[in-house]
Amino acid sequence: MTQSYVHGYSEREAERLFDQAETLTCLIHHDSIFPPGSRILEAGCGTGAQTCILAGKNPRCEFVSVDISHTSLAIAEKRVSAAGLSNVTLQHADILGDELPFGMFDHAVFCFVLEHIRKPEEAIRRVMKMVKPGGTVTAIEGDHGSVCFHPESEKALMAIRCQVLLQERAGGDACIGRKLYPLLVSSGLTDVMVSPRLVYADGGRPDLATGFTEKTFIAMIQGIRDPAIAAGLMSAKDFDEGISDLIRSAQKDGTFSYTFYKGRGINP
Amino acid sequence: MTQSYVHGYSEREAERLFDQAETLTCLIHHDSIFPPGSRILEAGCGTGAQTCILAGKNPRCEFVSVDISHTSLAIAEKRVSAAGLSNVTLQHADILGDELPFGMFDHAVFCFVLEHIRKPEEAIRRVMKMVKPGGTVTAIEGDHGSVCFHPESEKALMAIRCQVLLQERAGGDACIGRKLYPLLVSSGLTDVMVSPRLVYADGGRPDLATGFTEKTFIAMIQGIRDPAIAAGLMSAKDFDEGISDLIRSAQKDGTFSYTFYKGRGINP
Repeated sequence: MTQSYVHGYSEREAERLFDQAETLTCLIHHDSIFPPGSRILEAGCGTGAQTCILAGKNPRCEFVSVDISHTSLAIAEKRVSAAGLSNVTLQHADILGDELPFGMFDHAVFCFVLEHIRKPEEAIRRVMKMVKPGGTVTAIEGDHGSVCFHPESEKALMAIRCQVLLQERAGGDACIGRKLYPLLVSSGLTDVMVSPRLVYADGGRPDLATGFTEKTFIAMIQGIRDPAIAAGLMSAKDFDEGISDLIRSAQKDGTFSYTFYKGRGINP
Repeated sequence: MTQSYVHGYSEREAERLFDQAETLTCLIHHDSIFPPGSRILEAGCGTGAQTCILAGKNPRCEFVSVDISHTSLAIAEKRVSAAGLSNVTLQHADILGDELPFGMFDHAVFCFVLEHIRKPEEAIRRVMKMVKPGGTVTAIEGDHGSVCFHPESEKALMAIRCQVLLQERAGGDACIGRKLYPLLVSSGLTDVMVSPRLVYADGGRPDLATGFTEKTFIAMIQGIRDPAIAAGLMSAKDFDEGISDLIRSAQKDGTFSYTFYKGRGINP
């Protein structure tokens, strides 16, 4: 995990991730429940948005949430303490390194992490070694190829494509969601089960159009404006038009669909 | 509705539609329930696949299922009688014509019909006149732009695009699902509510990979092979490669996602 994190590490980005976590909690985490007493590894906790949800929903479990970025961990530290959570230990570690002991966890979770890793299968295999036999590994990922919005526009699709390309150049995969099932299976997990979680916003759901389409998805695409233009992927004018077009889909007569995939397998 | 029906009227096509109906019944129709005693107009019943589901789930309602095609109605007639349904009246009618009386129905349903109509808003407005004030109009549509499959291939996407283009040339819209909300609202319906229904198949769900990905979706795309090639949209070789690639997504390590949209509004 030596590649750069495509979304950057700014405070604004941290806020975006927090908004996203709020809006999507129910859809993505309603079934993120572990047996009381479990010791859980959160691999790649980032700024702690998912950490707070997971630890809050499982107060009788103990979380060890690790990340490779000190900057992210500092934000996560503030967030975890602001949430008054006492069941989280934040730790600096590279999942692919040797800081973490083997066989010490009952379960492990990757939330929006595998998409940023050059060799996701290697990361899963590594984390499997840290989980006891019979424990589970869960992965949650989006897929930018799943967007389906109205009105559709070529420039909006191109702006989204910029994010996919930049993430690819950084060694990641913004379209990993659809690949979760074969990825978990080929990593060696058994009884793999993947379920899609579709977020849909239209004029009848203005909160979701604001909270997800605008504040989460469009904000994320806007976040790669400078690197996309610097890389010559789009002109500033075209990119900004693409963003304007995307914003149209969050208006009263627009619609926006995006699919997350959540998968889980058992460590044999 | 004078344009041609892009899928054709063959027996094989009728069988495909029946397979689809079987696999998708639960996802799409689990909430297709009307108050006992209701008189319901099914606008564009085609070969009766959805008719049998709707009438079977609502035995105490009366259905008048109309279609513009005598060929389709003949198949629907056989299917309805084979299902032993006594609450369906099949009738030849053009929704845009003046065969149907105004204000005689409690509710109306369009299943996979608006996508084939040049002016869907006009058809909805017309059907609204046939429904009593306070009654509902329901519409169910797919969206070919919602496909998200693995492994992805350019030729597979092109083959799907052929279907979109042919349907467009026939006056329809294979990507109408995402537009359902604004369409129902602009037609004048109130309290419009649209919900997406995502079909997801992977190696862990082989029945769905066969029943939906292969027998429904890929069979439909295969069904437009000849017109697509005749129209010069793709070479036979490329089209067949696209189909092979799509079939890959129904194999053990492939995945396939498709979204249907179901909307309902109240006739003011």
